[in-house]
Amino acid sequence: MRARLWAAMAAVLFTGSITAAAATRETRIPDASIQAAAELRERALDSDLGYKIVESLTTEVGPRLAGSEADARAVAWAEAKFRSLGFDKVWLEPVTFPKWERRSEHAAVIGAHAQPLTLTALGGSPGGTVEGEVARFKDLAALEAAPAGSLAGKIAFIDFAMPRAKDGAGYGPGGRIRSRGPSAAIRAGAAGYLMRSAGTDSHRMPHTGITRFDDGLTPIPSAALSAPDAEQLSRLVALGAPIRVRLALDCGWDGQASSHNVIGEIRGKSKPDEVVVIGGHLDSWDLGTGAIDDGAGVGLTMAAAKLIGQSKLRPARTIRVVAFANEEQGLYGGKAYAAKHLPDVKKHQIGAESDFGAGRIYAYSSSAPDYAKAADAQIAQALAPLGIEHTPGKGGPGPDIGPSAAGGMAWARLAQDGTDYFDYHHTPDDTLDKIDPKALAQNVAAYAVFAYLAASADGDFGSEAKKVTPPDE
Amino acid sequence: MRARLWAAMAAVLFTGSITAAAATRETRIPDASIQAAAELRERALDSDLGYKIVESLTTEVGPRLAGSEADARAVAWAEAKFRSLGFDKVWLEPVTFPKWERRSEHAAVIGAHAQPLTLTALGGSPGGTVEGEVARFKDLAALEAAPAGSLAGKIAFIDFAMPRAKDGAGYGPGGRIRSRGPSAAIRAGAAGYLMRSAGTDSHRMPHTGITRFDDGLTPIPSAALSAPDAEQLSRLVALGAPIRVRLALDCGWDGQASSHNVIGEIRGKSKPDEVVVIGGHLDSWDLGTGAIDDGAGVGLTMAAAKLIGQSKLRPARTIRVVAFANEEQGLYGGKAYAAKHLPDVKKHQIGAESDFGAGRIYAYSSSAPDYAKAADAQIAQALAPLGIEHTPGKGGPGPDIGPSAAGGMAWARLAQDGTDYFDYHHTPDDTLDKIDPKALAQNVAAYAVFAYLAASADGDFGSEAKKVTPPDE
Repeated sequence: MRARLWAAMAAVLFTGSITAAAATRETRIPDASIQAAAELRERALDSDLGYKIVESLTTEVGPRLAGSEADARAVAWAEAKFRSLGFDKVWLEPVTFPKWERRSEHAAVIGAHAQPLTLTALGGSPGGTVEGEVARFKDLAALEAAPAGSLAGKIAFIDFAMPRAKDGAGYGPGGRIRSRGPSAAIRAGAAGYLMRSAGTDSHRMPHTGITRFDDGLTPIPSAALSAPDAEQLSRLVALGAPIRVRLALDCGWDGQASSHNVIGEIRGKSKPDEVVVIGGHLDSWDLGTGAIDDGAGVGLTMAAAKLIGQSKLRPARTIRVVAFANEEQGLYGGKAYAAKHLPDVKKHQIGAESDFGAGRIYAYSSSAPDYAKAADAQIAQALAPLGIEHTPGKGGPGPDIGPSAAGGMAWARLAQDGTDYFDYHHTPDDTLDKIDPKALAQNVAAYAVFAYLAASADGDFGSEAKKVTPPDE
Repeated sequence: MRARLWAAMAAVLFTGSITAAAATRETRIPDASIQAAAELRERALDSDLGYKIVESLTTEVGPRLAGSEADARAVAWAEAKFRSLGFDKVWLEPVTFPKWERRSEHAAVIGAHAQPLTLTALGGSPGGTVEGEVARFKDLAALEAAPAGSLAGKIAFIDFAMPRAKDGAGYGPGGRIRSRGPSAAIRAGAAGYLMRSAGTDSHRMPHTGITRFDDGLTPIPSAALSAPDAEQLSRLVALGAPIRVRLALDCGWDGQASSHNVIGEIRGKSKPDEVVVIGGHLDSWDLGTGAIDDGAGVGLTMAAAKLIGQSKLRPARTIRVVAFANEEQGLYGGKAYAAKHLPDVKKHQIGAESDFGAGRIYAYSSSAPDYAKAADAQIAQALAPLGIEHTPGKGGPGPDIGPSAAGGMAWARLAQDGTDYFDYHHTPDDTLDKIDPKALAQNVAAYAVFAYLAASADGDFGSEAKKVTPPDE
């Protein structure tokens, strides 16, 4: 999960623009479909299919950094899994992007308090070995205020503890330290950059994640310390004498790579050319096995569509599940999907991506325009028995859906409880055991109900081509 | 902490042998001392001195593997800390032992499910690179039952999950898999040995710890997987096809090293040659910073003695704090102490070591003979306001006190709540943030009260020379 900002922006752009087209239509869902969705919900709650799919991906493939050999295995896995689940149509769409690799990473305090530090390179960091005095800053603003040249030869270090929040709001400031900190360090003259991980745990688990360097700057080795290591380094600095650190990263960009969005469809009965899009992203960071980020999203949406396919009453429209390529390094799969499919935006009934872990879904909202509010409320009512609150107007689309939403596709948000998400996000600890099978089944049920009802509605949810140029990430 | 078995054995040997000498004496504690201990208890609860000492050791020295450069720094730190705290007498006693080093460790599943594994070499393991098919066993008995030669060229793997327990009882079976598993694997012909870590967490945190190879066997590379990695490997094996792992350890024994028991005393008023011994061990494993194992033991006993030294009414006897050398690899410091001081066993009023983390103390017991039961009860009564129960006859001495107890020294047990201890024990995660300062202050209070009262008693607790030969570990 990344790029929440862009998704939020897309949501804002979108909200204002639809109502003009509304006028007299009203989108509603037939009673028979509501009835069938209730049955589907109970069937999904009793099923372990979502968990079994995540188990299969994270075990058989494991970590799958975009562009790696394992990423290619993940694509083959997804295609085979769609087929073995009996999806009606399965295909691949190519996605290309720059390839980044991590080979090794070491760091240590040197001198009188010599000791190793646990850290991980930020995605996009160049390799290199830097030794220098640590200059500590309490937050991004403090580093951004450092005069040009003031950190010459030093290693800038931001020790900011990201706050815990159910909706992941703490990732805003935490993520900015990762995305903007390195460039701020370079402007002040630093030779290296360290940050306390953008996470909420207190384990020796560094959190990686993509960073970028502003145009015109020469990138410097940039890494995230685990929380205990960041606290240790701050205590050492507080002793008063200069603290020197040696940072040795072997990583970097290495040409172009390609992967694929892997797509599977459960065909609709009467309007098979119109689609409800659900999905997650197939790639993961290399440290963990990508269970909560985002094996869960892939597994639960595959399972939801499969269960819909087994319903006695097939929905009118097609359920399209997309396992997006390379979300982590810049929404490449989501952008490629939008570029290829936005000309057909009106055939997209609505879309929703799951990319915020595997916690229980607690809130539902969508971009439904006024004329679809009745159907939106019907969906919310069908979700209510799962403990899901209707929160109209809140949130935005998932990251890979963002570019499509910005282009005019209607979106829904099934908000997961992310209280613990940033304990594991982008760390070696993102493994299968962090997923509660019962919570995942609740997610499957919610996605199944949502997708089934949206695909069964008489009328649309407002997808309409818009002239929005997605920012170049 | 290790070698609970030996400590327990010493306890058993000891319990039966003392009562004969009892006869008409009765050991009791004067009322004025009881009063002073109550005041000391409240002062200790309000003090953060114990925590500050642990913070200083774990921050300024960090990891301190026995025989390493950092271990030497820890010895210098301990000597300086005793002096700066105003201890009346401070000295070092040399301890020598074989030196083991960890340089690097890597492992990966190879083949169709290629992925890295997180593990750590067991202390005492030789280095080497092994590639072989994994043969999984559910417990030690299953591996011990494997016929000779049946594992030729394979990597033996025991996936046993150690149970959680307040008193650490799960470490019995868990620890045996570490100490006896490698030899069992060799007997069956294995080329390498893997085990699920002897721990209770579910993080990517492997637990190290010493292992031994039985005489006449050629040691093989032996390592512990983190719990999620062990589960992953078991799932891969369960897929049915052979799973091959490549294990590359660079570690091993490298000659002799020396370190020191570091000793500080708060001098007694009327019987300064008689001592109450308290302490912890100064060395740690190399992965974490040795906060709960055993910076806590060192810090809390130093603080307890310092607070006793500040009492208006000094106790009759001397409080001796020992920061033991190299506990982790074989109780070298504890054995050296016993070898040097057991001729003076009758001058040791009683001893207690803290080496089970920093959880609240919930139970007190001792080896007090019948004639000292009144004093024992007085101590228990003074501890009761700290939430400590009197549990006569339970437990045994701490590991480094074990050899002295086996030689006739009276011992006390201040049992810490170890429910979470094996989440962090011997892992990179054993860091300062895992210590609750309030719980540590409760520990300081308990040790201060115990040591003060034992040092103030009229009469002894039964220390008496015994003919017991400590087993050669």
